[in-house]
Amino acid sequence: MTSLGKIYLVGAGPGDPELLTIKAHRLLREADLILHDDLVAPAILSVAGAQAEVVNVGKRCGAKAITQEEIHARMIETSRRGLTVVRLKSGDPGIFGRLAEEIDALGAAGIPHEVVPGITAGIAAAASLGISLTDRRKSARVVIVTGHKAYGGQTALKIDWKSLAREDATIVIYMPGHEFNNLREELLEAGLPPGIPAVIVSRATTREQQHQFTTVGDLVSLSRLESPSILLIGRSLEGTDARVRAGNFSRTIDSDLAELMLASE
Amino acid sequence: MTSLGKIYLVGAGPGDPELLTIKAHRLLREADLILHDDLVAPAILSVAGAQAEVVNVGKRCGAKAITQEEIHARMIETSRRGLTVVRLKSGDPGIFGRLAEEIDALGAAGIPHEVVPGITAGIAAAASLGISLTDRRKSARVVIVTGHKAYGGQTALKIDWKSLAREDATIVIYMPGHEFNNLREELLEAGLPPGIPAVIVSRATTREQQHQFTTVGDLVSLSRLESPSILLIGRSLEGTDARVRAGNFSRTIDSDLAELMLASE
Repeated sequence: MTSLGKIYLVGAGPGDPELLTIKAHRLLREADLILHDDLVAPAILSVAGAQAEVVNVGKRCGAKAITQEEIHARMIETSRRGLTVVRLKSGDPGIFGRLAEEIDALGAAGIPHEVVPGITAGIAAAASLGISLTDRRKSARVVIVTGHKAYGGQTALKIDWKSLAREDATIVIYMPGHEFNNLREELLEAGLPPGIPAVIVSRATTREQQHQFTTVGDLVSLSRLESPSILLIGRSLEGTDARVRAGNFSRTIDSDLAELMLASE
Repeated sequence: MTSLGKIYLVGAGPGDPELLTIKAHRLLREADLILHDDLVAPAILSVAGAQAEVVNVGKRCGAKAITQEEIHARMIETSRRGLTVVRLKSGDPGIFGRLAEEIDALGAAGIPHEVVPGITAGIAAAASLGISLTDRRKSARVVIVTGHKAYGGQTALKIDWKSLAREDATIVIYMPGHEFNNLREELLEAGLPPGIPAVIVSRATTREQQHQFTTVGDLVSLSRLESPSILLIGRSLEGTDARVRAGNFSRTIDSDLAELMLASE
């Protein structure tokens, strides 16, 4: 009887291929099958070994969507043939990545699996502007939510900002959408002062990264930046706009991806 | 006039050297000076190039403590000599890492700097047990707090669990300490059912990792595990204990660090 292949549920990081972990890099080189989401950069996929079949299972393809159940079936079937699978998700698999459903399916089928964390988009967006999500002088906690209505599924969860929005927290909103009128009202109603700074970061850590600073009271002035984006709100952002404009803070993307390629040979 | 050297404020990840990012690995090879925290693994520091001076600026040394101001001064002075510095912090620099103070000091001195995110301990602890911090079926948000009293400094912030502890959130507590009696009372008072699962993870992603599952109502039964540890609480943990015991979920640490070494030559 063939022994079961292992399924690695792996975070690809936020976009910049250099923000891949060394472990993810090794597993991509070794895998027989790579099932990846839409947002994973081609430079990351190019790390795959010659033996690997690489399949885009993203939900946003123009082509016929692959269902979550089909992804589960493909992983289980490949494991039973004794092959190794990397299920590659953008960011970290455990933050808005549907990891729980895949883990449940693999656990129920008795398939060996392991989760490899990645740099999640919210943390990367903050780092890309030199923002510390916590600051012992003013922000003692971080609240991570999603603005995407679909995430709640049938039991769409309305965010109770009264309890979450506090002056001593940094709020990180994944998939914030483009309509900030309601959010502004709810944050102000929850008691946040209108002057609290906010920033939207589009396509964080990629060459196409854009950002725009504003305040809670002026959220509706935000331009429609390209998805995926992250909205950060909190006193921990104070001073960031000026510092970024002063030019001392900068962000580099290694232009020489040859190094990544070399390591995969 | 010598041009200013750049300061990279870099996350070293949670412990497993393979969870270092490729970018952090490259910067460690290139740096002239590496100022690192106590918790950074020797295998990670061994990546440093031959030209590098490697200095432990951790606060827990038995030896005379280096003050935060001395760290700032060392970074600024080294930059002014035209040299590159990696300020290496365990986990992600922006989560309970005193990043904000260092960024402020560098910004005020006009020193070029950049933040490179890392895998933060809370996300790594969840991944190490196959826990998804969000689950669209039951947990729509993540709340990251610290139990460490010192973090609040002079304005020690008491955690208002009434607003933060909710059934639809996963709570991630850094530095939870060993006394869980008060926490149990406050979580129950805040309305969390006693059956909500919790797990403490000690030294996540290292060979010495240990964990213990419990529930909110039974928090006081937790053993005194070694620091650093992370306490996770939420419905997103449901089923994890059984799955980990069933043995389908496993965690590997690459025993062959030669690969890391090789890449640094």
